[in-house]
Amino acid sequence: MKIIDIIEKKKKGKALTQEEIKFFIDGIMNNTIEDYQVSALLMAIYFKGMNIDETTWLTKYMVESGEILDLSDISHDIIDKHSTGGVGDKITLIFLPLMAAAGLYTAKLSGRGLGHTGGTIDKLESIPNFRTDLSIEEFKDKVKIHKTAIAAQTLSLAPADGKLYALRDVTSTVDIIPLIASSVVSKKIASGANHIILDVKYGSGAFLKTAKEAQKLSEVMVEVGKRLNRNICAVISSMDQPLGRAIGNSVEIEEVIEFLKGNIEPDLKEVTYTLAHSAFEKAGKFKSKKESYKFLDDLIKSGKALEKFREIIKSQYGDDRVIDDYTKLPQSSIKYEVKSEKDGFVENIDALKVAKACKNLGAGREKKSDEIDYSAGIYLTQKYKEPVKKGETIAVIYTNKKETIKEAENLILSAYKISKKEPDDISLIYKIIH
Amino acid sequence: MKIIDIIEKKKKGKALTQEEIKFFIDGIMNNTIEDYQVSALLMAIYFKGMNIDETTWLTKYMVESGEILDLSDISHDIIDKHSTGGVGDKITLIFLPLMAAAGLYTAKLSGRGLGHTGGTIDKLESIPNFRTDLSIEEFKDKVKIHKTAIAAQTLSLAPADGKLYALRDVTSTVDIIPLIASSVVSKKIASGANHIILDVKYGSGAFLKTAKEAQKLSEVMVEVGKRLNRNICAVISSMDQPLGRAIGNSVEIEEVIEFLKGNIEPDLKEVTYTLAHSAFEKAGKFKSKKESYKFLDDLIKSGKALEKFREIIKSQYGDDRVIDDYTKLPQSSIKYEVKSEKDGFVENIDALKVAKACKNLGAGREKKSDEIDYSAGIYLTQKYKEPVKKGETIAVIYTNKKETIKEAENLILSAYKISKKEPDDISLIYKIIH
Repeated sequence: MKIIDIIEKKKKGKALTQEEIKFFIDGIMNNTIEDYQVSALLMAIYFKGMNIDETTWLTKYMVESGEILDLSDISHDIIDKHSTGGVGDKITLIFLPLMAAAGLYTAKLSGRGLGHTGGTIDKLESIPNFRTDLSIEEFKDKVKIHKTAIAAQTLSLAPADGKLYALRDVTSTVDIIPLIASSVVSKKIASGANHIILDVKYGSGAFLKTAKEAQKLSEVMVEVGKRLNRNICAVISSMDQPLGRAIGNSVEIEEVIEFLKGNIEPDLKEVTYTLAHSAFEKAGKFKSKKESYKFLDDLIKSGKALEKFREIIKSQYGDDRVIDDYTKLPQSSIKYEVKSEKDGFVENIDALKVAKACKNLGAGREKKSDEIDYSAGIYLTQKYKEPVKKGETIAVIYTNKKETIKEAENLILSAYKISKKEPDDISLIYKIIH
Repeated sequence: MKIIDIIEKKKKGKALTQEEIKFFIDGIMNNTIEDYQVSALLMAIYFKGMNIDETTWLTKYMVESGEILDLSDISHDIIDKHSTGGVGDKITLIFLPLMAAAGLYTAKLSGRGLGHTGGTIDKLESIPNFRTDLSIEEFKDKVKIHKTAIAAQTLSLAPADGKLYALRDVTSTVDIIPLIASSVVSKKIASGANHIILDVKYGSGAFLKTAKEAQKLSEVMVEVGKRLNRNICAVISSMDQPLGRAIGNSVEIEEVIEFLKGNIEPDLKEVTYTLAHSAFEKAGKFKSKKESYKFLDDLIKSGKALEKFREIIKSQYGDDRVIDDYTKLPQSSIKYEVKSEKDGFVENIDALKVAKACKNLGAGREKKSDEIDYSAGIYLTQKYKEPVKKGETIAVIYTNKKETIKEAENLILSAYKISKKEPDDISLIYKIIH
């Protein structure tokens, strides 16, 4: 078998065989295929696609290219939840304590933020002393005891995906549905979960801009997951506006704690509960949405979910005093209020603009090696459908960099669309793919 | 400017600017663009093409990436002739002495054979002691004195094309018309010629399989050449059947000498005279085909063309006794006659099959480092339209490798299509693009 024949075949629009895909992944791992051949094939895949068989094989061999986390000694009902990335997306941090409080196991390997989307690991690390650099053994022990743990993604899971991604990133071949699908699903499978709940977002603040693209990707991921014997579903939701009111790191931790204390933002609740109900369904806990939602409400009202979050913080060496005293979280030296320029109702808040403002304030990274400021961020005091008056605060900027305020303010002002008429209620959930 | 943006732009089907193409070629030359980025861009170009502006800039910057041979102190009417490659294509070796005998300058840098097409340099090197490794100064001196010289292509002309080609060869991105066009034209321009006559072939024995593809490539090459101020044209001809009767190295030299002695194969004459007339037109020597053809006939009848060939051989240190005594050329130990299996007329001889047989006999290279056997080859005793009888010799195999005969015989027999009816006369010339 020769890689040049495989490139030629894909270039002509033909489907690759299982053996050819294995040869490709093996070649990447043992360096017998040159990067310039890999990138030529990737670009041919951009134009000619991959069918579901090819995508499944690609995923399978990416999983097999490295370690596969074995959690079967803990449970055969391990849940994993994965978001394709959003703005203000702190849902994992609400989802995990809810699952653990409900008695279900989750073992979450997560990433850091890059570009305009935040990362769960960064958010957690804003809690003083919180450790995410757990060894596999520590990670598994914690899951066993506390029913959940969150660690930074290690490089040894699906390393072929890591190598491929690094090349895609510099050759303009990131936006290829079968490659995105196999990248996501291979990492989830290698993480050892049986039930995989995908949180697929589309819109201004998401990687995918349209519901149609999100549906296409979701269908491929779900089909590949099923073929590789995973219990999988994808919840597709809109990411046109930021989720919740807080965007940043420590500000989002505050919002998570508030949620668990019962001060619940409706949009966060809608997405979190939908994902949680899907998990309950997959694990066979509840069949009806009504039962699931009641149960989740009770976990919050009873304080059980909040106590689980405290337990997670303590288990991972963090300072759990943050739960009762937010000043224990990093605080910015500057708090700047952005005022509305007109009267009306909030008709839209462009998630991408808010995310860009937030990154400029110090809360995000441009490149992997950048340091981030945990205290930087934005709090949206007025959200969708809420009334605003000219001169009234609509958002608060948190930063330590005075010079970034003006640009952030302008971005926030341009993100807000204020209309005369009160807009209709909207649902964020577009579709669930089983 | 960033290469990833250029890749993305081409991926989306947009035309690149002059600055972007310069950046690309500069990046290849100073190694600031990685091979995996170059190959991703090449594959995007395969799918999205390049318009004539882009192709012209690409050609221009490839020319400027290295040395440009300056022959202006010799003449402002320097002719170059380039073939896209064929089977039994010895036309350069007839064309050059004719041009020189006609008083026109040609300065020919040529390549070696690879795959199924032979190379002019290999053919010449079958003449004992013939030297093609001339320095630029030697080359120019010989052109000055003898009006022509032939040297092996040096690496310093259009080196960006050399680098690009090496990558295209291993990433399945060879068959891209704008890249083929800029590769050919850039080398011709860098060789210092003012008048460029392209011999573009299509069919079984050619790189391009159809007349349509050949026309497309020719139109691009001619337009690019014109825009870069060259006097250029392309003669498109069929390469479905081998040119002449001899295919190999020393056997082709014999056929060249026979032609110059007046024993002329009609197909060789048709293509050679068409190219020569185009050259006469470009250089302003003759306007009518009739005048050109008569002049060419006279150059042969008078022996002037043959004497020019002797002069070239002597000038490049070769043994010119080969002209009168073919046994001075390398001779194979085995001569094997292939006999017809039926009666009829030759309706077709598949050039690709004959070329494959010839390569297997030892006359060609699979990879650049292979040694070739100058004495190996095939002589077609019966050609198109000629009658054959069952059991009569239709071709002679020359080789030193007994074990290759059987396969070559089978290939030759399958290459010959014998029909009951005498086929019509055909013209090889499809079109001339000015």
